[in-house]
Amino acid sequence: MAVYTDITDAELDAFLADFDLGKPLAFKGIAEGVENSNFLLETETGRYILTVYERRMREEELPYFLDLMRWLADHDYPSAAPVADRQGRTLKHVRGKPAAIVAFLPGLSVRRPEAKHCRQAGQGLARLHLAAQGYPGRRVNALGQPAWTPMFEGLTGAAEDLKPGLTATISDDLAHLAKAWPDDLPNGTIHADLFPDNVFFKGDQFAAAIDFYFACDDALAYDLAICLNAWCFEADGAFNVTAGRALVSGYEHVRPLSAKERLALPVLAWGAAMRFFLTRLNDWGSTPEGALVKPKDPLEYERKLAVHRAAALGGQGLILFGDEA
Amino acid sequence: MAVYTDITDAELDAFLADFDLGKPLAFKGIAEGVENSNFLLETETGRYILTVYERRMREEELPYFLDLMRWLADHDYPSAAPVADRQGRTLKHVRGKPAAIVAFLPGLSVRRPEAKHCRQAGQGLARLHLAAQGYPGRRVNALGQPAWTPMFEGLTGAAEDLKPGLTATISDDLAHLAKAWPDDLPNGTIHADLFPDNVFFKGDQFAAAIDFYFACDDALAYDLAICLNAWCFEADGAFNVTAGRALVSGYEHVRPLSAKERLALPVLAWGAAMRFFLTRLNDWGSTPEGALVKPKDPLEYERKLAVHRAAALGGQGLILFGDEA
Repeated sequence: MAVYTDITDAELDAFLADFDLGKPLAFKGIAEGVENSNFLLETETGRYILTVYERRMREEELPYFLDLMRWLADHDYPSAAPVADRQGRTLKHVRGKPAAIVAFLPGLSVRRPEAKHCRQAGQGLARLHLAAQGYPGRRVNALGQPAWTPMFEGLTGAAEDLKPGLTATISDDLAHLAKAWPDDLPNGTIHADLFPDNVFFKGDQFAAAIDFYFACDDALAYDLAICLNAWCFEADGAFNVTAGRALVSGYEHVRPLSAKERLALPVLAWGAAMRFFLTRLNDWGSTPEGALVKPKDPLEYERKLAVHRAAALGGQGLILFGDEA
Repeated sequence: MAVYTDITDAELDAFLADFDLGKPLAFKGIAEGVENSNFLLETETGRYILTVYERRMREEELPYFLDLMRWLADHDYPSAAPVADRQGRTLKHVRGKPAAIVAFLPGLSVRRPEAKHCRQAGQGLARLHLAAQGYPGRRVNALGQPAWTPMFEGLTGAAEDLKPGLTATISDDLAHLAKAWPDDLPNGTIHADLFPDNVFFKGDQFAAAIDFYFACDDALAYDLAICLNAWCFEADGAFNVTAGRALVSGYEHVRPLSAKERLALPVLAWGAAMRFFLTRLNDWGSTPEGALVKPKDPLEYERKLAVHRAAALGGQGLILFGDEA
């Protein structure tokens, strides 16, 4: 949950004076996202989310994200469209911080996705990849494979604290990943963080994707691999093959994978686990005691790394294709 | 802000199965109230607030509050009506904690009330006192004048830490208040916590009162005195006579005060300042470092105590009546 910035009624009035949204009727801080402050805003013209961008967001990158959200909404993708002020600007400021208003999207996230949700999420991800085609914005994936080894250099102490001997294991992983990482897969704009809390459902149907603030250019299949980790593991750390197959099959229903992409999925999933393991390990060590946001346990992703390592080194892969269960 | 309890989509579905509210469409934790967890719930039939009652709330007291909210809504008072399940129950449970659904009320709180808002708040308070007449529920004010001296006994160390010499000053105040406290004023059901964040406005008009979880039986004029402290002081600690007169005049527009009540207001305001000083002093010392809720500064109310002490001992009172500025 996160509401880091306090906005008074007077500040809200001043902020809304630039827009044609009518008078504010209700305004409530909401527990959505962990990086930014989000407010549910109701005005005479409808409902919106006001996001105030906090730490970690570099203001010069915000136009890339806002323009992408605009692009997706304009290309019939169900994501929150940014609202422009009377001068056409979507990136605004409140309390000296960057801020934007986007349309409110109804929908509910699922906490424990079942195979039917994974299939829908796969379709939603593939639709996103197709809708984003032609988006002119470019953003290097600062958390992509080339970044992992340098990131880990500062985290070896934290890794040992987490689990003695882990530094050597992760170093081996990083060497394997560097050697096996594919560089000739179809690239495009990826979400890069499509976890279950960033997907809204209406009933069992995919309704919308939110939180595009990790979007970047990378292999499309890597985005699917991120989802495999985020959607298809049991609470006990086991990979759920049925859920994994449903995710991939849902994705392929909209955008079939090439043979190269299919073959690459196990190493992409291993790498995707590494990316989230590293950022969680970093947050784990650096989040002050008693901070509002509880850091996510890096051990969850350490276990996923182990699953992918065993699958890759055992040569069996994740068995994601073939007859569905 | 406060969302202490995490509710999954599956738990929400199970909870809503007892109600005739239709399927959930959106569900978001909101930053409203500090004692309980609140969620904005949208279903096929409308918008609601789901409150999960946390620490400090005694479950056996909840029917008093929920029945009062029902009573007020039934008597045309703009407050959130509790929603009953198919068996007529408003007090429910989720995750083993008591919980209730109430209607969503639009409106915005004002952060820095001006005299026009104080007048409206006064009217809203008087309307509440009239609407609550006949409510059969009874609840002793556990934070009323008889409780203050015993409360302070455990807080003398905290008072000295806050400001050396404060223990003697507060003890003198308590003796004065015990002697001067009126016991023959019109009693009734009072809100007892009608701070600006518990009042919604539509534009400049009073729209609704929320958060009735301190409601109890006490002198009606004491409720007005609580509002004098909560609404009519400047950030620098000075009492704003114009705002105070607007509050009282708004109140009297709906429910004129008796001569006894008018005369009692200065001592009631002194006592109301003592009540909030004591609970804030208690929370100040007992809130663990890094807790989600930042305790409110007891010094704010220590300064209000000083204003009322000077007015009472100087014999001048608060000059709340007479020609308005």
